[in-house]
Amino acid sequence: MTEPRLHVDADLGAGAAVDLPKHQAHYLRNVMRLGAGAAVKLFNGRDGEWRAAVDRVSKNSMTLTVGEQLRPQAAEPDLWLLFAPIKGRRIDAIAEKASELGCAEIRPVLTERTVVARVNVERLQANAVEAAEQCERLTLPVVREPEPLGDAIARWPADRRLLYADERAGAAPIARALAAAEPGGRWAVLIGPEGGFAPAEQDLVRALPQALPVSLGPRLLRADTACFAALALWQAHLGDWRDGDGGQSDDAP
Amino acid sequence: MTEPRLHVDADLGAGAAVDLPKHQAHYLRNVMRLGAGAAVKLFNGRDGEWRAAVDRVSKNSMTLTVGEQLRPQAAEPDLWLLFAPIKGRRIDAIAEKASELGCAEIRPVLTERTVVARVNVERLQANAVEAAEQCERLTLPVVREPEPLGDAIARWPADRRLLYADERAGAAPIARALAAAEPGGRWAVLIGPEGGFAPAEQDLVRALPQALPVSLGPRLLRADTACFAALALWQAHLGDWRDGDGGQSDDAP
Repeated sequence: MTEPRLHVDADLGAGAAVDLPKHQAHYLRNVMRLGAGAAVKLFNGRDGEWRAAVDRVSKNSMTLTVGEQLRPQAAEPDLWLLFAPIKGRRIDAIAEKASELGCAEIRPVLTERTVVARVNVERLQANAVEAAEQCERLTLPVVREPEPLGDAIARWPADRRLLYADERAGAAPIARALAAAEPGGRWAVLIGPEGGFAPAEQDLVRALPQALPVSLGPRLLRADTACFAALALWQAHLGDWRDGDGGQSDDAP
Repeated sequence: MTEPRLHVDADLGAGAAVDLPKHQAHYLRNVMRLGAGAAVKLFNGRDGEWRAAVDRVSKNSMTLTVGEQLRPQAAEPDLWLLFAPIKGRRIDAIAEKASELGCAEIRPVLTERTVVARVNVERLQANAVEAAEQCERLTLPVVREPEPLGDAIARWPADRRLLYADERAGAAPIARALAAAEPGGRWAVLIGPEGGFAPAEQDLVRALPQALPVSLGPRLLRADTACFAALALWQAHLGDWRDGDGGQSDDAP
């Protein structure tokens, strides 16, 4: 069985006591069936990853004692995902995959053809946290409140590039465009709604000097698929997949 | 409203009459609310894409008359996806995304740590067909019956390369490995189960001369995420995303 891995708010250091909130205590006790002495991995986004042991268990709480550090905190790519919200489970999957694919921020943007009026930010955040725990990230991505695309572009940070899927014929193939870009730095991926950006929105994005338009091939991808593809390509070319260290997944039982 | 697009078995040519099966007649009449004269796009995997018009409508059937050809049939990448089946909706998403990401064959493989005993091939095929209709492919991917990984490797075609996610430290980063490979040709992507391949399975795959081991970065990806990422990277580097023609998505209303 894989050792459970949880994000906590508490400071982590050898010997520290960590009181888990009720939902995490419930998960470890009733779902994972852990009792006193069982091992858990903890991270808080600041102090790296630590092994802890279950110390006291009561009906609604659990206290862990922190042992050794497993990994020091390390820098992670500074990548945002901007996407037009879509319905149902597909949006949950976007939050989950954006977390696995190493996004620092997940930012729903409202576009002219966005059909979803309300976004459950709390639920998206919960999906992103669960994925972060499972995929061994050392940080949590932050899910922002939705904002109109026009506002996001109007306030766009000068030092952040914006990779976006451009449906015009002649946009550069994504691998070629990314191979020519500088690795690292601040970036964002922008994926439009299923009906595409409205013409005025296209003009707005294209006019941004930080924008890098790319093609995602000849097939019409769903918005969720386009998110996954663009994020994976970015990580492979400019993010932390460049180092080729697949050796982190050694937590076999 | 987007023009409906359907895969049919019938031969397609100007003036041909196409009788739709009951489920497609139901979809066009009751879901899309189409009546006589309405336009539909058709493809059959052999004759390209055609516009057709609704001709006769009855309670359980619908006949279309084929008009002009919209696109000639064209070669598509020869890419397979081999994956260890997983539970629930995640496996449906794999079939859908594999179709959008241009797989010719979707092949579930049973591994030592595969937890799913039964695969509903028919349901996966239906997901793949729906995605093919929506993403404007000119062919359907074929979903195969599950087979043991060992059998698939034992009969592996001499002329087909096998890209697989290798969890060992030191595997080449996927973008670097693909940039060094020859574009086109026959390929497959292999993604293992969530628990990883068993050691004997790893040895089996690694021993295959056609195998290309790659790293998908430092985070532990879920199996579905790894499928999407590897397929997108393959298309971007070796498949039909290299041409940068995003101009096919011009079916605006």
